[in-house]
Formats: sequence, structure tokens, C-alpha cells
Amino acid sequence: MVAASRNWRGERLSVGLVPTMGALHAGHLSLIEEACRENAKVVVSIFVNPIQFGPGEDFERYPRDLERDHDVLRKAGIDAVYQPSVEAMYPPGASTRVHVAAVSEGLEGTARPVHFDGVATVVAKLLSAVEPDRAYFGQKDAQQVAVVKRMVRDLDLPVEIRVCPTVREADGLALSSRNAYLNQDERRAAVSLSSALRLAAEAYAKGERRPDRLRQILRARLEAEPLARVEYAELVDVQTFSPPGTLAVLAVRIGATRLIDNHDLSKPFPT
Amino acid sequence: MVAASRNWRGERLSVGLVPTMGALHAGHLSLIEEACRENAKVVVSIFVNPIQFGPGEDFERYPRDLERDHDVLRKAGIDAVYQPSVEAMYPPGASTRVHVAAVSEGLEGTARPVHFDGVATVVAKLLSAVEPDRAYFGQKDAQQVAVVKRMVRDLDLPVEIRVCPTVREADGLALSSRNAYLNQDERRAAVSLSSALRLAAEAYAKGERRPDRLRQILRARLEAEPLARVEYAELVDVQTFSPPGTLAVLAVRIGATRLIDNHDLSKPFPT
Repeated sequence: MVAASRNWRGERLSVGLVPTMGALHAGHLSLIEEACRENAKVVVSIFVNPIQFGPGEDFERYPRDLERDHDVLRKAGIDAVYQPSVEAMYPPGASTRVHVAAVSEGLEGTARPVHFDGVATVVAKLLSAVEPDRAYFGQKDAQQVAVVKRMVRDLDLPVEIRVCPTVREADGLALSSRNAYLNQDERRAAVSLSSALRLAAEAYAKGERRPDRLRQILRARLEAEPLARVEYAELVDVQTFSPPGTLAVLAVRIGATRLIDNHDLSKPFPT
Repeated sequence: MVAASRNWRGERLSVGLVPTMGALHAGHLSLIEEACRENAKVVVSIFVNPIQFGPGEDFERYPRDLERDHDVLRKAGIDAVYQPSVEAMYPPGASTRVHVAAVSEGLEGTARPVHFDGVATVVAKLLSAVEPDRAYFGQKDAQQVAVVKRMVRDLDLPVEIRVCPTVREADGLALSSRNAYLNQDERRAAVSLSSALRLAAEAYAKGERRPDRLRQILRARLEAEPLARVEYAELVDVQTFSPPGTLAVLAVRIGATRLIDNHDLSKPFPT
């Protein structure tokens, strides 16, 4: 991968990287399309990163379908798939972690204590291997975006982080590989996340600015859904991930499945 | 720095980086000479890195003489000095640290709890800014070398770490910017470190392999010096920095000055 990328760079060709854990959906494809528009060469990495999953999380059952992923990528016309093994990424004795304090604390960082060290470390490794000019992330994982941007700035990594809007189903549900875990009833209940964000954005547009009131709107809609159990529903700053701010962030269990979503309330919710 | 380095790399010129904290001495010059032999372009960084100093350590009084350093570097014929400010390296909100577990624990890691996170983080940043083909470190800071090598391997950083032998005064004292802190009596007492390493290497050459006995030889020589206070005198593996191993590592206070030295006992001590 290093050699291929350096060859391209040697020919002054720009390189874009789209890091994924596979189980590709239209959200990933929107990142890939943007990467293809902005770069001469596009690399998609597929790596289900064990160190960003905590004990008891879904590393083992995380959806994997490499054959389908490769079909999708072949049609997308990208230039390389970077698909390292777990053994190549974390050989015996590997002991380095990248830790991004502050922005990785709270919310997802509280719910998933090792998660962001795992994310920051694997993204640092992927950026080292591919040395892209630009790397593409989805706004769906808003705190991940904030952590990666902070890391890139703090470590002077010579890459531009590009963030693409969340892709949603017709009813508003944010695309996620984990949606595959939902049964029919849970799938119907899962719309409560985007629905709550839409209601809060409408209230904001009508002039509501009180964080307590906006949080209440989010919670009321989520708690009206019997299958939903709210983990958090908060308003934070989009960069620091601390209050105050206009970014509404949600983590909700629908049955056994943990879903997240977010929306900047100062902007209209997409129809 | 990024632009200069990328220009060179675009012309297929190899780039070597010698990271320093300034106060340059013949030890640094040996790294610079090696870098000049092996690379088309050589960058020397000068940065007294605050985050690798703990509270109560010598960050404030660490020797700084930029005018002299620049004279030295001008004569050495290098291609660039990279000399970022503390504010540029750690702007408000910077919160990322690179942590290398295992190899950074114990010995220097115990004596200086934040030290190696600071070292790993700043080296990662310097490597990002300069993107060298090779980076040069002195064997004098043996655990630092082990930490940096581990980090480079673990994060897939595309750089070769080159390690150069410790440069010593005629009486054996390892060159260090901190030697400037020593008064005349302390300077005489400081020879006890290299003298202890030499005695242990001689015992090893005569067949002594018992770690306890080799440690005893180190300690006996150090404790014979009234001005010396031993912090540690251990035998560790050169890569993992855990026992068992043939690398003798010493940390000793001579008066108020903390000195370190090391030698692989399986090799003859330089005369």
C-alpha cells in the first residue's frame, strides 16, 4: 500500500482514502463518490478494528460480507482496496495507542471507554500506510469526526479530513451497518432517533434556544417509543463535544441494538 | 517544513531528520554526520519539548544556546533547521498523546511518568512535519530509542529509525547536554557511570552471566562514589526493556544532576 501510494504521489496524483469497516452501504458510497470527485486515486480500506470494540460489544458479530463489498467497490471504480489482517495491524508486542483527551471524553467515550483510543490509533495507522491527501468520514459518527480532526491537527498529520453528510433512509433513519441487526418492529422504532432530531430542529428554527427545553423535546419523542431506551440525548459543541452547543447527539438502544445519530439544530433537518 | 520536504521528495531526494533539543554537542554531531552520509537532504530539529518534562524537572533551566547551535549547524552543512515554537507545537486545545505501553514502563518511565508520552508525541509530530526517510537517535537514550522504534512499528510510520553509538569523553563520560550542570567535583564523580558499565562488561567478557552478580558490580562501583546516588542499575532486553537481557542501564544522581548511561554487556566497552 505504501509503495502504491508513493508511486501515485511521485506522479503528482492526489490520493483520497475512505476508511471503512466493510458492510458497505449508501453512506459509504457517498464518501467514495466524494473522494472520486476530489482525487486522482481513491483507496478504500476495509478493516473491522478489534481495538475499538470493548468487551461485550459486537466485534464478533459485526456484519462482514467481503464478497459483496468487493462487488460494490468494483462498480464504484476505485483504485485500491486496502484490507490488512488483524495480525498485520496488531502483531505480538504492539503496544502503542493514540489518545485524544477532552473531545473523546463523555458521550460515546463514556459509553465505550476504549473506543476512541482504538479509532484514533487505527486511523493514524491507515493514514501512515496510505499517506492520502484527503480522508473521508461521515457526519453520522460526529464524535469520531471531532476526535480524528483533533488528532490530525495535534499530530500535524499532512492530510485534509473531509466530512460528508449523513445519508438517511426515506423515513429519516441514518444509514448504519448496525441497522442490519434490527428486526421489523425495531426497524420501525428506530425512526424515533431522526424524528426526535427533526422535532428539535423545528423548535430551534422557531426560536427555541433553551438547551433544557431542546433536550426535553429530544427525550420526549424517544421515550414515546416503547422499544427505545435512551443512553444520552445532549447538546454539545461540534468541535469540543462539550456543552454548550447546537449539535444534538443521541445514543439509543432499540432492543439489543445501539444506534447513534446527530444533527446540528442550527441547520434545517433534511427532508 | 512540510512544503520543503515534499519538494525534496518530489525530486526523489532522500531526507534525514536529526531531532534535538539544541545545546548541541559532539553526540549530536555524530548523528548529523551519519545523516549526511545516508541522505541527500538533512534536517535538524531544535525543540525543547515541554511535555516530556515532569513538574519539578529541568525544563526551565535546560541549556539553550541557539546562536551557538546555529553556528554549529552552519558548519555542519545541513539543509534545514526546523525550530517550531511551543505555541505552534501545542496550541490551545491540543490534547493528543501517543502512548507506548510496556516498553515505556519501568526505569525512565517510572522515574519520569509523563516523559515517554511526551517523547512519543513530539517525535510523531516531527516525523509528520518532516516526513523523513530516516531519523537519527543516540544509543545514549536507550529506552527512548526502544519507545520510538516500537511506536514507528506500531503506527506503521514510513521511516527508518537509525541508532548511533554513544559518544564519550576521553574518560568515558557519555556526552549529554545535562553535563553542563556539573561542577568540577561532580564532573569527576560522573565518570562512575561509564566506569561501572566498563567493569560489568569486563566481567561479562570473562564469563559472568548471573544478572544479580552483574548488577552488584554496577552498584558497587557507583556506590563507591560519595557524590553519586543510584536511581536504578538494571539489566534488560534492548527491545522490550524488561529483564532478562544484556543491556545494562543506569540512572544516577550526581549532586542535583540526573545522568543516565547504558551499555550492551555482550559487547566490549569502547576504549
